Amino acid sequence: MDQTPDSSPETLIADMGRRARAAAGSLAGLPTTAKADGLRAAAAAMRTQADAILAANALDVAAGEANGLSGALLDRLRLDPARLEGAAAGVEAVAALPDPVGETISASERPNGLKLARVRVPIGVIGIIYESRPNVTADAAALCVMSGNAAILRGGSEAAHSNRAIHAAFAAGLAQAGLPADSVQLVPITDRAAVGAMLKAEGLIDMVVPRGGKSLVARVQAEARVPVLAHLDGINHSYIDGAADPAMALDLAVNAKLRRTGICGATETLLIDRAFADPAPILAALLDKGCELRGDAEIRALDPRIVPATDADWDTEYLDAILSVKRVDGVEDAMAHIAAHGSHHTDAIVTQDAATAERFLNGVDSAIVMWNASTQFADGGEFGLGAEIGIATGRLHARGPVALEGLTTYKWVVRGTGQTRP
Amino acid sequence: MDQTPDSSPETLIADMGRRARAAAGSLAGLPTTAKADGLRAAAAAMRTQADAILAANALDVAAGEANGLSGALLDRLRLDPARLEGAAAGVEAVAALPDPVGETISASERPNGLKLARVRVPIGVIGIIYESRPNVTADAAALCVMSGNAAILRGGSEAAHSNRAIHAAFAAGLAQAGLPADSVQLVPITDRAAVGAMLKAEGLIDMVVPRGGKSLVARVQAEARVPVLAHLDGINHSYIDGAADPAMALDLAVNAKLRRTGICGATETLLIDRAFADPAPILAALLDKGCELRGDAEIRALDPRIVPATDADWDTEYLDAILSVKRVDGVEDAMAHIAAHGSHHTDAIVTQDAATAERFLNGVDSAIVMWNASTQFADGGEFGLGAEIGIATGRLHARGPVALEGLTTYKWVVRGTGQTRP
Repeated sequence: MDQTPDSSPETLIADMGRRARAAAGSLAGLPTTAKADGLRAAAAAMRTQADAILAANALDVAAGEANGLSGALLDRLRLDPARLEGAAAGVEAVAALPDPVGETISASERPNGLKLARVRVPIGVIGIIYESRPNVTADAAALCVMSGNAAILRGGSEAAHSNRAIHAAFAAGLAQAGLPADSVQLVPITDRAAVGAMLKAEGLIDMVVPRGGKSLVARVQAEARVPVLAHLDGINHSYIDGAADPAMALDLAVNAKLRRTGICGATETLLIDRAFADPAPILAALLDKGCELRGDAEIRALDPRIVPATDADWDTEYLDAILSVKRVDGVEDAMAHIAAHGSHHTDAIVTQDAATAERFLNGVDSAIVMWNASTQFADGGEFGLGAEIGIATGRLHARGPVALEGLTTYKWVVRGTGQTRP
Repeated sequence: MDQTPDSSPETLIADMGRRARAAAGSLAGLPTTAKADGLRAAAAAMRTQADAILAANALDVAAGEANGLSGALLDRLRLDPARLEGAAAGVEAVAALPDPVGETISASERPNGLKLARVRVPIGVIGIIYESRPNVTADAAALCVMSGNAAILRGGSEAAHSNRAIHAAFAAGLAQAGLPADSVQLVPITDRAAVGAMLKAEGLIDMVVPRGGKSLVARVQAEARVPVLAHLDGINHSYIDGAADPAMALDLAVNAKLRRTGICGATETLLIDRAFADPAPILAALLDKGCELRGDAEIRALDPRIVPATDADWDTEYLDAILSVKRVDGVEDAMAHIAAHGSHHTDAIVTQDAATAERFLNGVDSAIVMWNASTQFADGGEFGLGAEIGIATGRLHARGPVALEGLTTYKWVVRGTGQTRP
């Protein structure tokens, strides 16, 4: 691939976009086996070139240490043989997923004999904008290729050496298997102007997926002229209904908040029905496990360790061992709170009353709604999708965990025998 | 409905957006019968208030005549009892369509017993921006309500009286049937600033559908921060393959171009394979019916009446009795021309060779691809959708004719029995 670091970011992205469009045209017509073979060759090349990838990663880690990156960021950046093998195995896992392209979504025959079908096709060119995790390079590229899309990757500057090495191996593997060289391109510059150019590349990039922290996603959503698949916040609620089983409610509340506090599916606000008899054991279990609870006055009266919640707490995604807790008047009040403060990501009800559960599942306007399950299940792998390119909370196209099918659209195919329209 | 003409367009649209969101929340949960009853009541009210609507329309027509509107524009603007009855009957036809909301798109059960379903839900709030046809007021409102969406309508100033009268009847009918008063709102100001405010109403309006001429659609696509469902051009191709049946090719070429030249599904460029033995009768038939043909040198040699095509002709949507004609070298050359000059709307192949047809149907990247059929069939009604809110050539969400299903998205519904994530 030509790298043209002297040209403007707009010129560079336009050139990459044209190459990607051409590659996408080829990828769209490939049979499943060709795409899967390409991905397996890419995984093999990642293994063959492991030493080069790890050496490149060591340069990034050393630079990160010199630049005072936090321990958490360094951990995201660091590769080791086991993590690299995990990334290669992940590419092979995507190669084994069912291929949505070519699937007939619906078919019909008109009275005049015209046969209509809606057939799944790739979206085209997907832009991925990410930060310090170099494994996204292989992970996102694999999902794009398997769904027949060309990918334009733009990773963070702190992982530049790692990304170049992984991309070189991945692209070499694809090329060896006969896939277009431009199926997966890495933007060769890492300054912010490249992101701006991608976000404005209408007609060249069909969809952008930001993978990273809230500030990245917010910037992408604010600036983008191309469609964005993303979620900004996961202000998720678990609502314990009056008819909840107390033991189940305790298990779900603890798991939904504390299993991992830093993932987007973690519960951030616990709503407890006034008709739920004894919330104190649930609150005590959370507090005993080191969770900070911020409650309204009614909740604080149940345990002296609970601190007051401010108005801002109901709109906060903590991504930490902190939980806001509020007493509500039944499912309608819970739904009103979620409508006012939620982020349309994942919200759950705990109840033994099926009618109340259905009211909640129908009435809550979120990408994922759950009954008697932990919000931490909000994940493409847990949903059986095999992988995910992200979780979307927008209202169009794809919602919730997005994997291969979410990277496709459809075309109408009409087969006739010479029909003219009267 | 409060009309607040003194506030800024942004304040007005924000207020309407909040009302629409609240109404959408109610509409989303309504059973099919309630929505259909509401639409039938709206149609009945349009009939009851026919005199008032026709009187309002007469004011618009008189003003249009005084302002020197063209005959074509006046014709679009003018209502008469038959046209109004047609609009009311159209609303009733939408009420009779199958309701996509609540449909389960896919379902699965995980090894841990979690039951997953993807269920269709309305998109939410749809903005419709249109020009001089007052019947769009009822037509678009009906599609939005039946699919459970709230609508914000912004019609052209030249139809302001007509739109207000139709909207008043429609909304009265809905309210009489118990549907939310804000299900369908009409923007009370018709200056361009209202359109700008709608296009920037992220989070308030979920999708905008422009219905009108190319300049309206181009402006909407250029300015919108909210997603747009539209097509700008219908530069559609009919390709006559070497293996085409000559009589069928003649019938299809004439129908695809000349049945109605002003609709978006009309063919604008005819591609003829060099292996097709005798194109002259097809060209003569088109010329004899008054079609201007603009051809390349090879085509011009076939009939002295054919004028030269310029480079611009291959990128032009005539919407008139004009056709550009080019000789190509087989299906691959035809596909290359379509990729370079098409608008991803509707493209057709005429051939008796099934393998060549499949190559074309797979390889052409358009919302609608056809084999042995007239491109003039590109229409929601002809596709059996009952109606259409528009035809989309974008790559996300909905492509081709969009009706009720295209106005929905989905949510993931997860039903458990207390599962926590390990």
